[in-house]
Amino acid sequence: MNWSLAARAAKMSPSVIREILKVTEQPGIISFAGGLPSPKTFPVAAFSEACARVLRDDGHAALQYAASEGYGPLREMVAAGLPWSVDPAQVLITTGSQQGLDLLAKVLIDKASPMLVETPTYLGALQAFTPMEPDILSVASDEEGVDIADLASKASGARFFYVLPNFQNPTGRTMTEARRAALSLRAAELGLPIVEDNPYGDLWFDAPPPPPLTARNPDGCLYLGSFSKVLAPGLRLGFLVAPKALYPKLLQAKQAADLHTPGFNQRMVAEVMKDGFLERHVPTIRALYKSQCDAMLAALQRDMPEDVSWNHPGGGMFLWVRLPEGMNANDLLPKAVERHVAFVPGVAFYADKADPRSLRLSFVTPSVEQIAVGVAALAAAIRESRSACAFSAI
Amino acid sequence: MNWSLAARAAKMSPSVIREILKVTEQPGIISFAGGLPSPKTFPVAAFSEACARVLRDDGHAALQYAASEGYGPLREMVAAGLPWSVDPAQVLITTGSQQGLDLLAKVLIDKASPMLVETPTYLGALQAFTPMEPDILSVASDEEGVDIADLASKASGARFFYVLPNFQNPTGRTMTEARRAALSLRAAELGLPIVEDNPYGDLWFDAPPPPPLTARNPDGCLYLGSFSKVLAPGLRLGFLVAPKALYPKLLQAKQAADLHTPGFNQRMVAEVMKDGFLERHVPTIRALYKSQCDAMLAALQRDMPEDVSWNHPGGGMFLWVRLPEGMNANDLLPKAVERHVAFVPGVAFYADKADPRSLRLSFVTPSVEQIAVGVAALAAAIRESRSACAFSAI
Repeated sequence: MNWSLAARAAKMSPSVIREILKVTEQPGIISFAGGLPSPKTFPVAAFSEACARVLRDDGHAALQYAASEGYGPLREMVAAGLPWSVDPAQVLITTGSQQGLDLLAKVLIDKASPMLVETPTYLGALQAFTPMEPDILSVASDEEGVDIADLASKASGARFFYVLPNFQNPTGRTMTEARRAALSLRAAELGLPIVEDNPYGDLWFDAPPPPPLTARNPDGCLYLGSFSKVLAPGLRLGFLVAPKALYPKLLQAKQAADLHTPGFNQRMVAEVMKDGFLERHVPTIRALYKSQCDAMLAALQRDMPEDVSWNHPGGGMFLWVRLPEGMNANDLLPKAVERHVAFVPGVAFYADKADPRSLRLSFVTPSVEQIAVGVAALAAAIRESRSACAFSAI
Repeated sequence: MNWSLAARAAKMSPSVIREILKVTEQPGIISFAGGLPSPKTFPVAAFSEACARVLRDDGHAALQYAASEGYGPLREMVAAGLPWSVDPAQVLITTGSQQGLDLLAKVLIDKASPMLVETPTYLGALQAFTPMEPDILSVASDEEGVDIADLASKASGARFFYVLPNFQNPTGRTMTEARRAALSLRAAELGLPIVEDNPYGDLWFDAPPPPPLTARNPDGCLYLGSFSKVLAPGLRLGFLVAPKALYPKLLQAKQAADLHTPGFNQRMVAEVMKDGFLERHVPTIRALYKSQCDAMLAALQRDMPEDVSWNHPGGGMFLWVRLPEGMNANDLLPKAVERHVAFVPGVAFYADKADPRSLRLSFVTPSVEQIAVGVAALAAAIRESRSACAFSAI
């Protein structure tokens, strides 16, 4: 049978992270590899009550086909919860924020269109953009955010700049206020649209991050948000906020993609969110993740060789480690797994020019005790690998 | 701000049906336009129990990120329920079967790829395929199914033939056993892959339809199924069954599209389906829809002018009406709406060479009483339009 694949299919590839997760699901492995929120934070009892109420009071509507835009009351809650003036008519409910990436890729990217991403960037975004075959350009980035001069030098003809300003996946870093102001100004001058992805912004430890880029220039930005990190990822609920000129095409793409996001799930979440639930619930997630991040930072400080470096995230789920010169995170991984600890090598997160010394650690899934054991094992694997490197250099 | 749209965005368009549904949601309109299952058939109590059990026994897993392939026990139930030998590893759970169309379009269609559809065909499929910019060719079809000679004459280089053999949307017609056998044979000779979409196959009235095309040549077919018509559409649960060679790319496309279909919804449905629930539940849907179809056929027979014709579906949700020569369903619609009845003009369902005299009636959403009133009103609108036609012809 002549199943001919589309050219774009050759560019799709299995997620490196998925492959690593298969290994790390072996019993006994302490995994810093996954990006899974801690299940302790899932409000199971609140969902259980919400399900029962939705099916009792509104079951037929919740189980019927529904509008592609999303459930009205949920769109209103989303609009009201954002720190700039948003008309609920600009809110599109998506099947996870991953779907928002798929929809905007279809609507904005032609084959060989240039588009810009941070260095490194979210792997899932690269996977969503790649089937539309853009020319993805990496913009240099540092601890304060994207390098504005490098951005400007690459912006000509770019369809958009994709950026995760808050507690970024994979690095955990947050763009400073000064850098946001400069980026917003320069993008407006350049006429460069911004796609701002913000799944982690609510998960700050001591202080909220600076205001979103979209709040500074709503017509120049497309904003993506998610309920996965503040409620639960298994419901697959996210949203996008689009300039009104762009909304109809995104809606048409949404309709063709899956008609609409499950109305039952949208009502469940709207029901749970009534009466300010998130204002009580999200602080408990912040406190848990801060304690786990602190435990990881303390363990790194205690156990790591002097020439290993890492950052100090102000929130989110990840931190970013750099191995000593000459080491390679891909080579380290099997040695770490032998010692029952796993991570994701940083190379997965680069559109090009990957830093082979970088790696991502998640601090949210394992317990504080597991973090201590896992970091000690990782440090031992690094020492072992380094002596092997030194040996091979002789 | 320079939001440049992708070329494919210009080819996307709002669904005609969506626009019609907006009109028909006005109170007092009897709508034969929608394709909405009757909410009477939604097993609300069973879902309510299933939700409570899933959250109590398996809440953390149901609310966590999950495998892109779908929930294992549900994939096994799907495989076991199909009338040919299916390995659960070939089953991909999708966010409604609409998403299956989106995924296969990404994986199989290049810009300007020829591909084949029936005449007329499912509008949602045209919407899912169009963003990948294929060259869509309509294959002639009659009451028994697709015209094999016409198919063969257009098959050269075609990526696949998309076909809905059972109680088709929009026409309600079913491909005969003889035509299926001939199609299966000819497609295999031609090396032409088949995409078989089967959302309505379980909704037969007196006898099940002939076996699926995929059962005859599993490696040459990609099969799409849905829980929307046998349980409820608002959960957005469908599936596809792919040849093993094709599965990995569809899975990668799925992962990039929305990571996975909500695990909570998958567990709810698996829980409801345990212990043969569908074997008790689906016959009640069949009986309801048969009684409503019979009511519509009786009303058409009673009220319609002699030169209006229609078919007699053996199941499903729709029947297909043909207006007298010289009339146009698009022109009829506003006159029908004035009389508080709505339908979808057939032109929406043609990739090209539309029949302006055709229209689709759904018999499942209105009650038997509303069907009688609505068909009488539609007949009156046809008589009125025809006398206007005759007048304008003078």
